[in-house]
Amino acid sequence: MFQITSVNNPQVKKWKKLSLKKERVKQQSYLIEGFHLVEEALKYKKDALTNIIVREDLLEGEDFLNLNLDTDQIIVVSLNVAEEISKTQTNQGIFAELAITTNDFPKEIEGPILLLDAVQDPGNVGTMIRSADAAGFQGVFLGKGTVDLYNAKTLRSAQGSHFHLEIYEGELKDFIPAFKEEGYPVFGTALNEEAVSYKEVYVDTPFSLVVGNEGSGMNNEIVSMIDQNIFIPMIGQAESLNVAIAASILMFHFIQ
Amino acid sequence: MFQITSVNNPQVKKWKKLSLKKERVKQQSYLIEGFHLVEEALKYKKDALTNIIVREDLLEGEDFLNLNLDTDQIIVVSLNVAEEISKTQTNQGIFAELAITTNDFPKEIEGPILLLDAVQDPGNVGTMIRSADAAGFQGVFLGKGTVDLYNAKTLRSAQGSHFHLEIYEGELKDFIPAFKEEGYPVFGTALNEEAVSYKEVYVDTPFSLVVGNEGSGMNNEIVSMIDQNIFIPMIGQAESLNVAIAASILMFHFIQ
Repeated sequence: MFQITSVNNPQVKKWKKLSLKKERVKQQSYLIEGFHLVEEALKYKKDALTNIIVREDLLEGEDFLNLNLDTDQIIVVSLNVAEEISKTQTNQGIFAELAITTNDFPKEIEGPILLLDAVQDPGNVGTMIRSADAAGFQGVFLGKGTVDLYNAKTLRSAQGSHFHLEIYEGELKDFIPAFKEEGYPVFGTALNEEAVSYKEVYVDTPFSLVVGNEGSGMNNEIVSMIDQNIFIPMIGQAESLNVAIAASILMFHFIQ
Repeated sequence: MFQITSVNNPQVKKWKKLSLKKERVKQQSYLIEGFHLVEEALKYKKDALTNIIVREDLLEGEDFLNLNLDTDQIIVVSLNVAEEISKTQTNQGIFAELAITTNDFPKEIEGPILLLDAVQDPGNVGTMIRSADAAGFQGVFLGKGTVDLYNAKTLRSAQGSHFHLEIYEGELKDFIPAFKEEGYPVFGTALNEEAVSYKEVYVDTPFSLVVGNEGSGMNNEIVSMIDQNIFIPMIGQAESLNVAIAASILMFHFIQ
């Protein structure tokens, strides 16, 4: 059982730096925290797990013992170290470090894919990954300008769903033409003249669905690649729906 | 044109205190900030507007001039006063104070109502108000234990939709029996044996839909009052949907 009690330990400094995207890219690694996420990682992404970090006061607790870990699998840390590496106000005392496993493109198209065009709020992105998981999507593509998956807030909102489906990262303008060559449709959410109500659109093959930035919507270049834009008719006086809400309504409509 | 340049001005202190619920209750007043919310308030809630507060550097700007306000309607404040009363990192320099106008019960039932049972995240509550507005709901009932509507984060997520529909506040266990006496159904989202897929349920009268707390779901006492519990079938491995997502999928399903 390896123990770390000083916040000046070089390993602690490395973990702490993982809150920055550029350090995550450099180390090819990220941290998760809390029992739910660590349990999901143990269940679905064990190969990528490099360290499990446990606060010393937890070792005898039921929640920890239920994880059934060998003591040589874990690094025990003091309370101040746990606080140093945590991104929450009151940490649960359990963390894990994982290798980054984001893909470029899907190897094979087997189901629907959600494409995010410069979505900026980590809560929105995490929530859409969770909804895409619940809707049985094959994956979520984080287009350029979209907030990082491994941001602590994105991971928290995703609730472990990023372990359940594939996450791709890259340029939508490269992915969309390649996807269309497979013969599957790409739906967008730009409100132009050709857009039709989502209730008029059904699909029984794999497809892609693009949602855009919270303020400015989809990029024009991406709009020009769309087969069919769709919208959600609104009755009240709201000008728009939250992007994660709109994406989820559409995803659950299409899988009906 | 009234001007305030000191953060020690008693009016500034009163505004600053409005970030606390107990002060909002005492003063029966709340603050909004940003151009979008102030515009919506001018459009839909002019009667409740008591003060419009403008940062001095904005007076010649296009955004401000487009509001077409008389100078005797506004209070001009210095940059440090604007910063003092703002709840955002970079404020837009425009604020308004409004009288609290939450209702107890609807006077008449004219459309669907969303009932929130101890929903705690202000982003979730604000987003559900926005979705309920877009779905043409009559109102949203904030049951006991639900985060305050006038919390800055709730208001920001609601994007002005709380001006468009009715907001009620009180005990769901008092409201639900009264609502049922009108002969309309109450749907819940408790996952019990009687629960059926939402796809099997259609309704062409007013109705209520209850969603529960993010962690613990609906209160047992409320569950016992429900006519029909419904769920959203999930395909992937996510354990649940975010509450605002689930509520929005259900609201848009019912209004089809």
